[in-house]
Amino acid sequence: MTYDPKSAAFPSFSAARRGFAEGKGSPREFLEQCIAALEAREREVKAFVSYDLESARKAADAATQRWQDGAPLSAVDGLPFGVKDCYDVAGLQTLVNSPWFADSAPAEFDAAHVAALKDGGAFVFGKTTTTEFTMALPAPTWNPWDLTRTPGGSSTGSAAAVASSMLPLATGSQVRGSVIRPASICGVAAFKPTFGALNRHGGIDPSPSVNHLGLLGATMEDIWDAARQIAVAVGGDPGHLPLDAAPLPEPKRPLRLARQYTIGWDKTDDASKAIFEEWLEGLKEDGVEIVEPGHSQAFSDYEDATTRTIEFFFHLFWEIRWPWLEARERAPDKFSHVMHGHLDNAAKLTIEDYRRALECQAQLQSLHRALKDEVDGFVTLAHIGAGQKGAPEMGTPWYNDASSAVGAPTANLPLLSVDGMPLGVQLMGFEHRDAQMIAHARWLLARGKAPSA
Amino acid sequence: MTYDPKSAAFPSFSAARRGFAEGKGSPREFLEQCIAALEAREREVKAFVSYDLESARKAADAATQRWQDGAPLSAVDGLPFGVKDCYDVAGLQTLVNSPWFADSAPAEFDAAHVAALKDGGAFVFGKTTTTEFTMALPAPTWNPWDLTRTPGGSSTGSAAAVASSMLPLATGSQVRGSVIRPASICGVAAFKPTFGALNRHGGIDPSPSVNHLGLLGATMEDIWDAARQIAVAVGGDPGHLPLDAAPLPEPKRPLRLARQYTIGWDKTDDASKAIFEEWLEGLKEDGVEIVEPGHSQAFSDYEDATTRTIEFFFHLFWEIRWPWLEARERAPDKFSHVMHGHLDNAAKLTIEDYRRALECQAQLQSLHRALKDEVDGFVTLAHIGAGQKGAPEMGTPWYNDASSAVGAPTANLPLLSVDGMPLGVQLMGFEHRDAQMIAHARWLLARGKAPSA
Repeated sequence: MTYDPKSAAFPSFSAARRGFAEGKGSPREFLEQCIAALEAREREVKAFVSYDLESARKAADAATQRWQDGAPLSAVDGLPFGVKDCYDVAGLQTLVNSPWFADSAPAEFDAAHVAALKDGGAFVFGKTTTTEFTMALPAPTWNPWDLTRTPGGSSTGSAAAVASSMLPLATGSQVRGSVIRPASICGVAAFKPTFGALNRHGGIDPSPSVNHLGLLGATMEDIWDAARQIAVAVGGDPGHLPLDAAPLPEPKRPLRLARQYTIGWDKTDDASKAIFEEWLEGLKEDGVEIVEPGHSQAFSDYEDATTRTIEFFFHLFWEIRWPWLEARERAPDKFSHVMHGHLDNAAKLTIEDYRRALECQAQLQSLHRALKDEVDGFVTLAHIGAGQKGAPEMGTPWYNDASSAVGAPTANLPLLSVDGMPLGVQLMGFEHRDAQMIAHARWLLARGKAPSA
Repeated sequence: MTYDPKSAAFPSFSAARRGFAEGKGSPREFLEQCIAALEAREREVKAFVSYDLESARKAADAATQRWQDGAPLSAVDGLPFGVKDCYDVAGLQTLVNSPWFADSAPAEFDAAHVAALKDGGAFVFGKTTTTEFTMALPAPTWNPWDLTRTPGGSSTGSAAAVASSMLPLATGSQVRGSVIRPASICGVAAFKPTFGALNRHGGIDPSPSVNHLGLLGATMEDIWDAARQIAVAVGGDPGHLPLDAAPLPEPKRPLRLARQYTIGWDKTDDASKAIFEEWLEGLKEDGVEIVEPGHSQAFSDYEDATTRTIEFFFHLFWEIRWPWLEARERAPDKFSHVMHGHLDNAAKLTIEDYRRALECQAQLQSLHRALKDEVDGFVTLAHIGAGQKGAPEMGTPWYNDASSAVGAPTANLPLLSVDGMPLGVQLMGFEHRDAQMIAHARWLLARGKAPSA
């Protein structure tokens, strides 16, 4: 299937639910659409670790009844969603694509965000594939637009499920680029909030200092409805200001966007570069000022600092020392060669390396914050090109590292394509200005799609 | 047993180990001292949930051999320590004084700090009692100095075990006053580091945004040796600067200390007030300047703000909503009436209440930081008086709330007594200046003890 950003569209629950109260459609009808897509595509895409159609139909029927009674629990009542298999769903194992967890007990509780969405009447459709420990061996999943290519990772199955219309929403987690990257590669909308602004507790979290709960969805509206429900019911990570769960921000034209290169640009293929430049030109014609790193000393300093994030992330291996070095000692054969490499790196680090990494992060954050009155946000590509061919893998984090290290809200805008495959624009805002970033994202999405390369 | 701060002393592992290399004493001999105290007192004190003398003796023998070979693993090689029963010890259940956990699986891994201490050759002597979920029904433990009184909580058994010479070191956790308070009531040294500076992961943590790993010990040297080992091996909480694990800071006279009242002073009995005033007078005679809240607008503003911490902590009930409201729904009879009350409070809170609590905390922190060039630290009593008579309970947090909310390093100095019972001085420093606070603490301890009331 060739991807065309101008025509690609996925069933949106937010759009559908507006009719539910008047009997136009129902959660059950919506679910059946998803199931039809699943039946058509799942055998080849392999987005799910597990799913349960019987439970899903029961939950959709109950929600249908509530909408008919004029008493839905929330805007997401009846929403079928996928849960990345690093998060807990009560009664199911959390497997994280690792044999280490093959004999683990089923989770006792739902992860916080799963509990929150269920409180609002949404229901778990299934658990979506991910990479080993969300960081090592890729998931056995293929890109819905080209089954010879990777869907990206580590929120692999979530991106693939939304991109094949099996689900309007699925959850992800991002330490480096694990939400934005697969969303770019699969051509779906995605949102990684300010660090800590959505509660990511309940599951396996090997990189807690930078890990974010993120959402991938059919539209930014689907994503925002779910994010609001999570923020209201369980807030952010403990000790962190929660997402300001205002009503869906209206589209708003950004006045000035900073165009970044980071270390991604040099690794980007020429066709992708060209299509991004063309998109930027179009933006300028529509009156958005695009500033380059040379625009100010402050921007130039920040752009320079983003090239050092790779060193920062290397030192984060410190966080997998406990308890995973010990786990490996107990059962080395339950860790892939990729994970062994990560653990070998971890074993070499000292607390002084980690201290330096945190200092590097603090400096990056401070340079980023210094720009908050100078620009409305930052744009780059969301990935260095289309998903690679061959055995599934993660994709690369080069454009995503900075936003993760800074902890600023970030979106994937599925606006471009290259070689018949999706390519996203990454928009990054400023910490705790998530709603503003969403307003700009909606304007950029509504403005329309660029020509394909 | 009447407590006299001038003569009270507990077996110090740090002191003993200086002889180990020359064959003066050994970890095994040290352990046998602890076991003798356990056999003499545990039946009435009830400091332990469980202990394992056979394993302890085996570990002590192995450490003895290493010292004899001139190859100890660290300064804590052979140290027997207690682990508060909210933290995991591999192979044991984590029970947290709650029937909810009675059927839980044994922990798979040691908590990070337990693993770190074991890496250095220390070994778990036993798990010490705590309160239900570290916040509700008290532990069934009695004060070693008067078996009709509470030992305080929630690090109840840790304080009682050290105070009855059963252990030179035990771990605790503090959300409000759960390390400093029982240390004051039992008359032992204690250290709660800067928030996040010692890794507290691995266990049950119902208040993650303010919870600290803390240490209770025979001397400040025992505590610092253990803290260093934890910092070097597992660092702080992920994303937080770890404790600067410098060698034991030399005693240093503080030049100027801020004397606080907080809401504790009005709740303090007259005898305790008098003995604290007398201690302050002695300090002044020794050339330490004591400043009162009227000293500056900045100090006065901070002192005022500390009276509002109680509101801050009330809103922290938000953090027990997930997953404990659901747990209660499944098995209401496994929660005490105290815990039911906390969960009822939690159920009433909204995310907006929580947001306000975080804003209140940020304000308090900013007022505290503003004083960092004005004074060397802050002194108050560590508790409103001796431990109460009657059924065990927690003690009160009134003097401890501010240091926990601010996240500044804090020590209990077992310097005073009232009514034949221990009463501590609380010394609080500034974030990430833990070593400086310890240097002042050691000077205040070495200076000697005040007369008893």
